Amino acid sequence: MKENKPELYTSLSPAMLHLYDLNQAIVVVIDVLRATSTIATALHNGASCVIPVDSVERCISLGKLTGAITAGERDGRIAEGLQHGNSPFEYQRSFIENKTLVLTTTNGTRLLQMAVDNGAETIVTGSFPNLTAVTNHLIAQNKDVILACAAWKDRVNLEDALFAGAVIDGVMEHFNINCDASSMAHALFIQAKPDIYAFVKNKQASHYLRLSRYGLEKDIQYCLTPDIANILPVYTNGKLLVSTCATASGEHHLVDV
Amino acid sequence: MKENKPELYTSLSPAMLHLYDLNQAIVVVIDVLRATSTIATALHNGASCVIPVDSVERCISLGKLTGAITAGERDGRIAEGLQHGNSPFEYQRSFIENKTLVLTTTNGTRLLQMAVDNGAETIVTGSFPNLTAVTNHLIAQNKDVILACAAWKDRVNLEDALFAGAVIDGVMEHFNINCDASSMAHALFIQAKPDIYAFVKNKQASHYLRLSRYGLEKDIQYCLTPDIANILPVYTNGKLLVSTCATASGEHHLVDV
Repeated sequence: MKENKPELYTSLSPAMLHLYDLNQAIVVVIDVLRATSTIATALHNGASCVIPVDSVERCISLGKLTGAITAGERDGRIAEGLQHGNSPFEYQRSFIENKTLVLTTTNGTRLLQMAVDNGAETIVTGSFPNLTAVTNHLIAQNKDVILACAAWKDRVNLEDALFAGAVIDGVMEHFNINCDASSMAHALFIQAKPDIYAFVKNKQASHYLRLSRYGLEKDIQYCLTPDIANILPVYTNGKLLVSTCATASGEHHLVDV
Repeated sequence: MKENKPELYTSLSPAMLHLYDLNQAIVVVIDVLRATSTIATALHNGASCVIPVDSVERCISLGKLTGAITAGERDGRIAEGLQHGNSPFEYQRSFIENKTLVLTTTNGTRLLQMAVDNGAETIVTGSFPNLTAVTNHLIAQNKDVILACAAWKDRVNLEDALFAGAVIDGVMEHFNINCDASSMAHALFIQAKPDIYAFVKNKQASHYLRLSRYGLEKDIQYCLTPDIANILPVYTNGKLLVSTCATASGEHHLVDV
């Protein structure tokens, strides 16, 4: 029964997020290069939790208060006053295990806050490194879904749209999809599927160019590789936790925010 | 010299139009199903001019004042109080020649007003029926270009993005394009190019479904056919005129608005 399936929509930019009803849906926050890839990696490598914040100031003050690791970027580089950046390679298990990471980024953490402000009750983060964890969760939950791309300062970007398309490719049989942005994202992903990295490079995606100028080619390759940090970050009380932990509340020693 | 080429950007929705500097650019307003296809058709068939207005009330009052033909739609159907709709087939030469058409539509005329309000000085309208007139003009002018999709109530739509992609396909050698929305639109158009109508139908584009439900399949086919009303509508002093007329001002008997 097609009618009984939940709905799925794609918001290609935060500038369009207000068009969708976030309240009853699972909102998947997508910032492939690099915020949500780094979040998946840090949690996959044993971070207690990731606390996304929307300003460098708040990141620094929260770090001082709690002793957590503070990290973030603005315009693709480590933000002034922070010790660590937004590269997944900074968050190896030997460094991040059992630690709390406070993170602020140009687009991803801003979108997450925007989703909260727009009434989202269930937020997870998605990226190629945790693609299958996301699709499995969406299929299991059987709820409406909003794939929310972080884009770049509200301008649509290729890699987030491609990830939305990859999710759609994995879940489309389970949803009603009457949404042109979703059709477009999926059609693009089908083109890119044989070699996602080559597609992004060949299309000269604007954030690809920005990061590769900083010598971050390796980061880009990592962030476009499916399932290498395959956990599901769920946003709960201001923190991102690995899904299985999120349902077993009280078992973590988390800082208060 | 790549650096000397003008820039081209694509705004996939009116919700993103404010991100682009319209002032120095040629803004191409795109509402393929059906406003800009109908505008091209009416002018191609000899209409003196098309006056786009953003409300049904204004359309009716302007019609009373000037004796012009008033037409428009809301949500894909003829708007209450207006005699004519937004189908290109209503504007055959025998009906529209030497007449003024006052037109209001759900998305296209609203976007045109928004472009004016956002400081656009040079506005043309584009659709598949006048594709080559648009691309020839953009190549000849050698100015920055914003391809502005009307979308559907701010949600991205497939057919406007495909037209943006078709324009890009025709002009890309002449522009610097560092814009992911443009890359996406172009990649989609390349997929659709062998049979645009089949692509839109196959992807179950949302406005395709809306119009085909009203029995407007023939309109959709027409609106996706390149170069069958191949003139360039230019917006001048509140009116859309055929480009050659716009440069020979004073030769038309136009109503004052």
